[in-house]
Amino acid sequence: MSLIVQKFGGTSVGDVARIENVARRVVATRQAGHRVAVVVSAMAGETDSLVRLAHAAGGDEPDPREYDALVSTGEQKTIALLAMAIQRLGHPARSFTGAQIGMRTDAAHMRARIQSIDAARIHEVLGAGTVAVIAGFQGVDDEGNVTTLGRGGSDTSAVAVAAALNADVCEIYTDVDGVYTTDPNLVSAARRLSRISYDEMLEMASLGAKVLQIRSVKFAMQYGVPIHVRSSFSEDEGTWVVREEDAMEGLVVSGVTYNRSEAKIRLRGVKDQPGVAARLFGPLGEAGIVVDMIVQNVGQDGSTDITFTVPRGDTRRALAIAEQAGAEVGAAGVLADESIAKVSIVGLGMKDHAGVASRMFRVLASEGINIQLISTSEIKISVLIEEKYTELAVRALHAAFVESGAGQPRAEA
Amino acid sequence: MSLIVQKFGGTSVGDVARIENVARRVVATRQAGHRVAVVVSAMAGETDSLVRLAHAAGGDEPDPREYDALVSTGEQKTIALLAMAIQRLGHPARSFTGAQIGMRTDAAHMRARIQSIDAARIHEVLGAGTVAVIAGFQGVDDEGNVTTLGRGGSDTSAVAVAAALNADVCEIYTDVDGVYTTDPNLVSAARRLSRISYDEMLEMASLGAKVLQIRSVKFAMQYGVPIHVRSSFSEDEGTWVVREEDAMEGLVVSGVTYNRSEAKIRLRGVKDQPGVAARLFGPLGEAGIVVDMIVQNVGQDGSTDITFTVPRGDTRRALAIAEQAGAEVGAAGVLADESIAKVSIVGLGMKDHAGVASRMFRVLASEGINIQLISTSEIKISVLIEEKYTELAVRALHAAFVESGAGQPRAEA
Repeated sequence: MSLIVQKFGGTSVGDVARIENVARRVVATRQAGHRVAVVVSAMAGETDSLVRLAHAAGGDEPDPREYDALVSTGEQKTIALLAMAIQRLGHPARSFTGAQIGMRTDAAHMRARIQSIDAARIHEVLGAGTVAVIAGFQGVDDEGNVTTLGRGGSDTSAVAVAAALNADVCEIYTDVDGVYTTDPNLVSAARRLSRISYDEMLEMASLGAKVLQIRSVKFAMQYGVPIHVRSSFSEDEGTWVVREEDAMEGLVVSGVTYNRSEAKIRLRGVKDQPGVAARLFGPLGEAGIVVDMIVQNVGQDGSTDITFTVPRGDTRRALAIAEQAGAEVGAAGVLADESIAKVSIVGLGMKDHAGVASRMFRVLASEGINIQLISTSEIKISVLIEEKYTELAVRALHAAFVESGAGQPRAEA
Repeated sequence: MSLIVQKFGGTSVGDVARIENVARRVVATRQAGHRVAVVVSAMAGETDSLVRLAHAAGGDEPDPREYDALVSTGEQKTIALLAMAIQRLGHPARSFTGAQIGMRTDAAHMRARIQSIDAARIHEVLGAGTVAVIAGFQGVDDEGNVTTLGRGGSDTSAVAVAAALNADVCEIYTDVDGVYTTDPNLVSAARRLSRISYDEMLEMASLGAKVLQIRSVKFAMQYGVPIHVRSSFSEDEGTWVVREEDAMEGLVVSGVTYNRSEAKIRLRGVKDQPGVAARLFGPLGEAGIVVDMIVQNVGQDGSTDITFTVPRGDTRRALAIAEQAGAEVGAAGVLADESIAKVSIVGLGMKDHAGVASRMFRVLASEGINIQLISTSEIKISVLIEEKYTELAVRALHAAFVESGAGQPRAEA
């Protein structure tokens, strides 16, 4: 007998018929002899509709406490309906709001962080043979105010519940059947990974693979919760996200990702003197603009080029700040370019395999793709290229690193 | 400075524009120097929509605990939206669910009874100058399960909050502007009462005047909470429901009410022997059928007629039970008649005024209306008549007892 936490997102519980599907799935798991805690999101569309109401009544910036009180009702509807649907199949179930299950968070409304969970309460319910149906995305602060974890918080709720219960696995049900080596819409040879490490998943998630929320992966890594990402619509195994030591060896590159939502900004001919970077990135940070890649290189004349990327929605504001800073430090010019894409290869194996970077650059060069910027971490290499070459680059890199069979033992069709 | 509890029903908070109206009303009361706690219902239509979902997921008889967890989200939406709308007008406000305000009830889901309220918590909020916006209709049991009070429970919530706070008044805002001497749709001379006693209001409410929930009036009477029934759409004074000693003297009859939703069932020629009534009304009670009037009279031959009334929706079931019982006790026959109406006159003054009943019968006789059944209490006389005479009877009685000026001091135009 295992203790299994199952998480179903908004699409999986989008209407009563889908909630009944989820109920059948939960019951099947219970009938297989397991204890089950289920964490659910609001029905698809519900949260958006509540957010619209919040702005209609509360204006552009509704009070965060009341905002949380309002939007948390979305998940409360789902838990009651799912508990009813499970009961209707003849199995005991009980719904719990964040407050009822002791999901304590800090008081940061709309982006609260989980601090503790009353695991004893859930164990008591599960021990009685009852399915615990828990509202994701929400908690309660020390004063009893309802808090929410921010968008995508339900994944984090599920992992937190699994961690608190010391569950055998946290199953995340979604509309895709796992984590792929790259975007299957772009590369037909993309393969579903059977296992991936937390670190790799973090790089994949932050680079654009939308399967799992980054926060939930960090949480799972911190507490060693095995995550199983799988499809709501099939019985097949999906992808396990596990400790590095549990991920099979041998794969140099687990995946190829891309991101076409950033813009590049370049300060030319900056005098190479202390404090230049601070003058630029200080105001950007204060403006709440998230800077991704940063590259600085000193030219032969002692002057410097600084290039960085920001989300495209922030291009104009970032450019204005860069121009202001450029004027202060005597830059020769400031340029913005939105026609760029970031393409990355991710893999634990890079740590131990030399030459991965140079091979990546060779592959791109042989396709005639110019590299504008390079950024690396222990398990990832990202390059900035012209946007129109995105598909070409992703296909070439996938063919070279994944389809070639390098690391076949860790990837399965 | 007074402490005022204001209750707004589903129609008054039916959409964001109406919620903003309520917010302005609350703010005006606060600006007049009062402390305000507001109790609200779910937005009109919301509860019905949640109930439909409950049946879709949970079948004909969804689990009562989950049903309450689901439908209580309706009021939670309203409190957050109203708090936002009040804040947007520049005034501090804070929403509270039943659980957050310590609205303790018993564990009888879907029809819970309030046991206590954490008044200190509300006083703390109000003392800080903040408007407390409280979810009506819901509470929480000793184990932290959400409970609901049943339909119309929001009135009861408001009165309970007012009682716990020792408020100066509980204002019930509704789509009519008070309690009338009779149905204004039937009698154009109907007048709004300025004051009415709890006892009279109870008789009026149970006889068909839909202004206030009976439970809330009982609660108000028990704790001596003055209720002010008034319109959401006007500033005019409505009707005060108060202790008998605070209701002005002089009015013999406060109102004329009618009820066309009952059916009459008659067992003819029952042998007059012990246990007959028990054989009949025992099974009716077990079937959950609420019997209203009961009259039994012994004929000259020693046989008895038993006549009683039930809601028309239960006519068929009641008739079947009566036929079964009739066969057992040797009744000569069982008849059902749905073409009847109950017309009543209500007034504290009846206690001290002899001859009210005989005057009532005279009035009806002079209109050629035959009386089928009579039932009286200390402050009410009800008669059962043919349904087609309802309007005629109500108008004649209103003219004779109310318009005649008997008790003018207590009724105001």
